[in-house]
Amino acid sequence: MAISQGQWHPYTDLASEAAGAVQGAARQQLPGVTVQEEQGDGFTVTRVHVHGPEGEQAIGKAPGRYVTIEAPGLRERNLDLQERISQALAREIEALLGLPADAPVLVVGLGNARATPDALGPRVVEKILVSRHLRDVVPAELRGDLRPVAALAPGVLGTTGVETGEVIQGVVERIRPRAVIAVDALAARSVERIGTAVQLADTGIRPGSGLQGRRVALDAESLGVPVIAIGVPTVVHAATIAYDTFQLLATRLKGRNAFFDLYAQFGPEEVRRLIDEVLTPAVGSLVVTPKGVDEMVEDMARLIAGALNAALHKGVTAKELMRYV
Amino acid sequence: MAISQGQWHPYTDLASEAAGAVQGAARQQLPGVTVQEEQGDGFTVTRVHVHGPEGEQAIGKAPGRYVTIEAPGLRERNLDLQERISQALAREIEALLGLPADAPVLVVGLGNARATPDALGPRVVEKILVSRHLRDVVPAELRGDLRPVAALAPGVLGTTGVETGEVIQGVVERIRPRAVIAVDALAARSVERIGTAVQLADTGIRPGSGLQGRRVALDAESLGVPVIAIGVPTVVHAATIAYDTFQLLATRLKGRNAFFDLYAQFGPEEVRRLIDEVLTPAVGSLVVTPKGVDEMVEDMARLIAGALNAALHKGVTAKELMRYV
Amino acid sequence: MAISQGQWHPYTDLASEAAGAVQGAARQQLPGVTVQEEQGDGFTVTRVHVHGPEGEQAIGKAPGRYVTIEAPGLRERNLDLQERISQALAREIEALLGLPADAPVLVVGLGNARATPDALGPRVVEKILVSRHLRDVVPAELRGDLRPVAALAPGVLGTTGVETGEVIQGVVERIRPRAVIAVDALAARSVERIGTAVQLADTGIRPGSGLQGRRVALDAESLGVPVIAIGVPTVVHAATIAYDTFQLLATRLKGRNAFFDLYAQFGPEEVRRLIDEVLTPAVGSLVVTPKGVDEMVEDMARLIAGALNAALHKGVTAKELMRYV
Amino acid sequence: MAISQGQWHPYTDLASEAAGAVQGAARQQLPGVTVQEEQGDGFTVTRVHVHGPEGEQAIGKAPGRYVTIEAPGLRERNLDLQERISQALAREIEALLGLPADAPVLVVGLGNARATPDALGPRVVEKILVSRHLRDVVPAELRGDLRPVAALAPGVLGTTGVETGEVIQGVVERIRPRAVIAVDALAARSVERIGTAVQLADTGIRPGSGLQGRRVALDAESLGVPVIAIGVPTVVHAATIAYDTFQLLATRLKGRNAFFDLYAQFGPEEVRRLIDEVLTPAVGSLVVTPKGVDEMVEDMARLIAGALNAALHKGVTAKELMRYV
Repeated sequence: MAISQGQWHPYTDLASEAAGAVQGAARQQLPGVTVQEEQGDGFTVTRVHVHGPEGEQAIGKAPGRYVTIEAPGLRERNLDLQERISQALAREIEALLGLPADAPVLVVGLGNARATPDALGPRVVEKILVSRHLRDVVPAELRGDLRPVAALAPGVLGTTGVETGEVIQGVVERIRPRAVIAVDALAARSVERIGTAVQLADTGIRPGSGLQGRRVALDAESLGVPVIAIGVPTVVHAATIAYDTFQLLATRLKGRNAFFDLYAQFGPEEVRRLIDEVLTPAVGSLVVTPKGVDEMVEDMARLIAGALNAALHKGVTAKELMRYV
Repeated sequence: MAISQGQWHPYTDLASEAAGAVQGAARQQLPGVTVQEEQGDGFTVTRVHVHGPEGEQAIGKAPGRYVTIEAPGLRERNLDLQERISQALAREIEALLGLPADAPVLVVGLGNARATPDALGPRVVEKILVSRHLRDVVPAELRGDLRPVAALAPGVLGTTGVETGEVIQGVVERIRPRAVIAVDALAARSVERIGTAVQLADTGIRPGSGLQGRRVALDAESLGVPVIAIGVPTVVHAATIAYDTFQLLATRLKGRNAFFDLYAQFGPEEVRRLIDEVLTPAVGSLVVTPKGVDEMVEDMARLIAGALNAALHKGVTAKELMRYV
Repeated sequence: MAISQGQWHPYTDLASEAAGAVQGAARQQLPGVTVQEEQGDGFTVTRVHVHGPEGEQAIGKAPGRYVTIEAPGLRERNLDLQERISQALAREIEALLGLPADAPVLVVGLGNARATPDALGPRVVEKILVSRHLRDVVPAELRGDLRPVAALAPGVLGTTGVETGEVIQGVVERIRPRAVIAVDALAARSVERIGTAVQLADTGIRPGSGLQGRRVALDAESLGVPVIAIGVPTVVHAATIAYDTFQLLATRLKGRNAFFDLYAQFGPEEVRRLIDEVLTPAVGSLVVTPKGVDEMVEDMARLIAGALNAALHKGVTAKELMRYV
Repeated sequence: MAISQGQWHPYTDLASEAAGAVQGAARQQLPGVTVQEEQGDGFTVTRVHVHGPEGEQAIGKAPGRYVTIEAPGLRERNLDLQERISQALAREIEALLGLPADAPVLVVGLGNARATPDALGPRVVEKILVSRHLRDVVPAELRGDLRPVAALAPGVLGTTGVETGEVIQGVVERIRPRAVIAVDALAARSVERIGTAVQLADTGIRPGSGLQGRRVALDAESLGVPVIAIGVPTVVHAATIAYDTFQLLATRLKGRNAFFDLYAQFGPEEVRRLIDEVLTPAVGSLVVTPKGVDEMVEDMARLIAGALNAALHKGVTAKELMRYV
């Protein structure tokens, strides 16, 4: 079944999925989007570059650079692989950050610490080696390129009454970091990517993204400094499962007698309407997540915190740093 | 579309759903199953009695009594309603328990405390007023009908290496309660029942039930004492969403030209195969749960613990008890 | 043994203790300090008013009003008493706040959520009914005097790298509350006050106070809005135990032959030096806390959150509010 | 000041402290006790062997072998040192265990997960790689010397109503391990040992030991299999601070005129009585612990779990094991 470009697709926070879905279907070069793949040892790095409004129109992602590291092996909790990916991620963070070794950085953990699939951000923040408060403690000769790192998990609107963006803006104005790194749980399009991919983007966080559907942007415009977003898909919207079932049905019926009748009845708009119907208001807020979500979130939080600690503290080793913590 | 009895249905732990699904379809009296409904103030009590193997065959639930209290209003976090349901639940627990006021009881919280949708049991246990160790502390004249209550959250196989059933058997042999009450997170068939229903059963816990799919039974046979199961649906298996989509498709197509062609192609077996196909091994372990799962589990844990504390400590008030805790 | 006024005293965050210690010893009216006691049902309310620098000099507390509610019975986890004190506290909060029913308020939970004796603030924040984000959700006719309440637990310097004061300043500038209420774990002078007293003050939080020894002030001057501090003693500094031993020794020796020799050797300065000696750097950061600190902190967090929810949401009942949360 | 042997000493769970305190005072060989010290890189290993009732009488510890690894550097959170000590501990565990590589072992985490200073045991258990349930999952050719390891945190009497010993006995009877390893938070005599020492003993857990003062024994006699105890001091009883003050006073007064008068008045019994007096019932349950207790407990839990995972899983690497977890 030919899915025409522009048709409804299940939502994904991953640019690599957004680009892939359309490309796979359209079998053509997407205007304003360049996609590059690179093979690592047990993982794939996909770089999606969205150029201007044309690119945004094509895949529904803000213009900017997106790097996705993907490794189905992460599902097996392979420690070696986790370590290799953490190192690869550290390199990508450094490259995207592009700051002097002593430029101050604020790490922000978005999401709800008490709801496991949404707890990625807060759990990363727990593991960050903060150093901003150590300047007066560390001897000058050791200070060298000690980067002032701060880390904050501002909680979610429902439990604080304050937009995450407001808290971050307030803190950024006070402590004036040179960049903000925002970690968030994401929604993927494919259940196979839950817990097996990390996305890095220089676009910041957009409204509507993330597991909670962020209400405000966290980006260079709203905060006045570059915002790097790091995310891991921890859920798939329930709608996606419905959509997949439909697609499978369509595929299975293809080539049989009844197919053309069916196809005539279900155009792109009907697909969308059908899914809207399956998703009653109650279902709309549902997400699909693995039973072992806690271990997955913990593993990925460790992987990302490890990468951040390595990328942010180049001048002083973590071991040296720990002495002053 | 006539779904013949015996066809595949999405799995549910709720007897009221199992009975309802089949009844709704078959529009006939189920053999060996009696269903009774009662209206409360803002909630419905459904009593399903499964008689012998005939009843078990009809709805796939072990013979015994199942009481479901259902209240869509729970979704709105209505405190009054929560209180009314907690009191109704306390009455049902007392009736099902049928023990003297001083007979010792063990409350068991099944599930994984660190994975929110599965944490219902451990969170209830945290809130139980235990009293088994107070016998020596409480003055004899106050002891009266003080029931020795113990409460245990034995963890899950994946993090302990021990079957929950083995831990419980070991403890039951040691402390010899007159009954075990096992609290567990359940899987429902309909997303509307997530967090809006409580099921009470005198059948204990069956293998395959619960969010994790219990591997062993916790029942009168395995433990040597009656086992009352209390559960709240916190998830729906991802398969159910796929199934719902198919059903909706079938309903929509009904009466149109293509319907008969389609129907010819999809018998009950094809439905099952199709869903199995959608559910790759990866998808098989996925569950659908609301984003606000943490608040929901906490509310329901408080409701159940409140009901248990009221039902188990009739002779001594909670306030009196707290003095010795 | 006559302890002259001005001598070293073990540190306390409680103004009632500070006034009492000196008064008890000096048996005279303290200059610039008025102390008033009031008896409740099972509890005592002590109002200390520190007038200007003279009062501050006398008891080492910033000028302002301090209200301490004290109830040894809280140790027994008496639910009725908890409820009565929560209501009394709500009245005191309202009186001290003195704001219109719809004036926005920010509740701040100071301290480290992961270190039990210091977790009071974050645990109170968890239980606050926030409403600031509900203005658009609640129907206008219900909104009435709905007070916009926000609640934040900004973490501690050691894990965020950011001074708590900086986070609060940033957020206050953004959301412009009319008052800030800061909840913090306190250090008492007497172990009997651990978990049995609540202090309310209109002076805000002073540097050096609290379990962690706050580094910066959180007060009207630093934040630009009134700051009400609410605290519960959860620890006693280890130094205090040493001091108590010394005092007891002195008392015991009094009237015996050796006493005068001893007394000649230990003037006020010697006492201080002796204690400094006992307290090696390692001991300096030690605190004394009960084994059952977790239950105590949880009980007191519930008591305070209950009082805050009642005092802040007068126009709309908690039950109504929950519908929109 | 000569403290005669047999005088009251502040309680300690550490055999090395118990032996040291008496030895230091008595300057003589203790009957029935052999003490051996060994220097590691940054740490000291002390082996205390208590021979029969004579040794027990001398230092108040059950007959058996005690190994204490002590490293003041742990206070500085030195990662290298943590790693070296973890490896040393792994070797000691293996030596004390003395079991074939595939003999089943049960790790038990004693203490209250919700009270930080007492949470060591439960936090170690969280980090243990359990494998007992993997026998059927791991391919036979990989199984090799896979040791079935189970791990349980049975909670505390106050929240379960069941003696920890009863739960463990029940589970041991069910799963029949060849040895039990019990991890517990300890009370030390010196604040300098909080978080800087690990004790390993082949005597199991004795009544009265640990932060909570265990009520029952967990040893070879009660469980029918050898019990190895692993502990870290996380608190000092508040009484100890009082005692230290007294000792310091006595030392300071020594050589001055008044000393002999003082000494005449305070014999061993008076010391005990004095301290009993300082410790009112309220104070009796108080413990001294550092403010940063959370990080300390987490660090030590990681160190111990790392040592246990290394010592217990020799045949299969942790990395291999993780694939099946």
